[in-house]
Amino acid sequence: MRVLVTGASGFVGQWVVKGLIRRGHSVIAVGRRNVPVDADASGPIQWRSCNLLDQADVESLVASEQAAGLIHCAWDTTPGAYWTSSENLKWVAGSLHLLEAFVRCGGRRVVIAGTSAEYDWSGDETLHEDTSAVVPGTLYGTAKNSLHHILQQWTPTNDLSLAWGRIFCPYGPGENAARLVPRLIQALSSGEPLPFDSGSLIRDFLCVKDVGDAFAEVFDSGFEGTVNVASGCELSIGELVRMISRCVGNERVDFGTLPDPIDQPHRIVADTTRLNRVVGWTPSRSNEARILETCQSIQHPAQGVMPDRPHHH
Amino acid sequence: MRVLVTGASGFVGQWVVKGLIRRGHSVIAVGRRNVPVDADASGPIQWRSCNLLDQADVESLVASEQAAGLIHCAWDTTPGAYWTSSENLKWVAGSLHLLEAFVRCGGRRVVIAGTSAEYDWSGDETLHEDTSAVVPGTLYGTAKNSLHHILQQWTPTNDLSLAWGRIFCPYGPGENAARLVPRLIQALSSGEPLPFDSGSLIRDFLCVKDVGDAFAEVFDSGFEGTVNVASGCELSIGELVRMISRCVGNERVDFGTLPDPIDQPHRIVADTTRLNRVVGWTPSRSNEARILETCQSIQHPAQGVMPDRPHHH
Repeated sequence: MRVLVTGASGFVGQWVVKGLIRRGHSVIAVGRRNVPVDADASGPIQWRSCNLLDQADVESLVASEQAAGLIHCAWDTTPGAYWTSSENLKWVAGSLHLLEAFVRCGGRRVVIAGTSAEYDWSGDETLHEDTSAVVPGTLYGTAKNSLHHILQQWTPTNDLSLAWGRIFCPYGPGENAARLVPRLIQALSSGEPLPFDSGSLIRDFLCVKDVGDAFAEVFDSGFEGTVNVASGCELSIGELVRMISRCVGNERVDFGTLPDPIDQPHRIVADTTRLNRVVGWTPSRSNEARILETCQSIQHPAQGVMPDRPHHH
Repeated sequence: MRVLVTGASGFVGQWVVKGLIRRGHSVIAVGRRNVPVDADASGPIQWRSCNLLDQADVESLVASEQAAGLIHCAWDTTPGAYWTSSENLKWVAGSLHLLEAFVRCGGRRVVIAGTSAEYDWSGDETLHEDTSAVVPGTLYGTAKNSLHHILQQWTPTNDLSLAWGRIFCPYGPGENAARLVPRLIQALSSGEPLPFDSGSLIRDFLCVKDVGDAFAEVFDSGFEGTVNVASGCELSIGELVRMISRCVGNERVDFGTLPDPIDQPHRIVADTTRLNRVVGWTPSRSNEARILETCQSIQHPAQGVMPDRPHHH
């Protein structure tokens, strides 16, 4: 199938593109920047530059490509800023334009990147798509969730098949240097001792390579509805730090020398029954193996993925 | 204050404009069509034509007008279609563009037209802003509610003062001929007997003149949050029909000769405590008096408001 992928040069999108290619799809990879100049228009990936926040640009992209499939990964994710940024309003608007135009031009199947931030994070229970409360506490989570609600109510009036994948804690090659895992690798690689808090917060980490592959599988499965895209494995930040410190060969972490963050939810872990049994996808490698790969790609970037220059075979 | 009113030539907006003028504001009246050609640019109303679904047009409107206030009434309300129309997606997107640009250009105070369709309509209880469930059953209600959620989460990050007015059942001069009250007036004015269902559904009607005045009062009050804009008086459709039949002098209504609609909620009535006591607004006239005015304006339009040509004194 011809599949549009937005955010195709971004952290998640570049792995979604690979997952689709592996499954035999033809991909129209959409990015605002970083479209490779040597893109081979005759291969299974065609690169298209588009500002998705510009209504006319979106209209022209969708009308000219006539794709039947869409995986929508693009959003503002500027570290530190994206939780509260007004960019969230623009991305809801841009996403609505994109979806409306896509369906009007014959689009039939869409998978959209949602977020664990749509859930109520104040409790400690494992988060399930149907039974857990959806009460986003941030503008980012509210924006994604509002987009989802609108599309859910809209699809019964058209022929669109919609799946919504809630991403938990992705990490891995291509990650912004200001985010947790790259910062830890950087700090520990210096060889100096690392002061840290108690490391007691618990999260559900999944390597972005697997996130991308899971999205491609969700797309292919025809699954309709909401699905957590996560490992289902709980990992404390302390355990994550120890994994990284073993990989980089610096185990001098001083836990408890920094105060714990006061405003962070204690535990954010996904129930992945639906992803595993209904979609039928499980990650091929453990977090331990993926963390090692990630450390290697950041310490020796020539062997890994260039952060701002996605591969395209 | 300089106040932008969107949908200013529309059913609700034209009365909002009058309410603001009465309270001494200077109004920039924004409509896509029907901008009076003899508009007097030096008076308290300036008419501006703008397609609010066009991003560039919105940007230009907001940047050039530099208004501190905004009452946003514009939306698709095509009778029969608006509950499920894809236009709802465009209006969410356009509203987000409008609000983002408004705040960026110095806007400080906004009141937005919400709807009773944001509430869960499956129960029979009187609908209260805080205690009633907000579970819209339609795309229209979901679109408005999603816009509200996004703006609510956004305002703590800026200086915007936001009020959201949920409109129940408006009727009155300027109403689209395909809607209930004009259809009843038309049918009964023929003098023929009118077959009808049991008339047992219960609604909260408020004349659009009062809806417009209430919005202007909400704007002036500085109230922040959600407020029902309604009469708080329950009226069965049967009672409404009898009021109209008395006004037009044709009381030949055959109740029970048509089947009752099967998919309509039984009772939609607002708790108006907040509007009455916190905002401090109550309607100046009864529904009985307003229905009589409405019948007269529709039967003798020269004495009333031209449906497609708002007054502007």
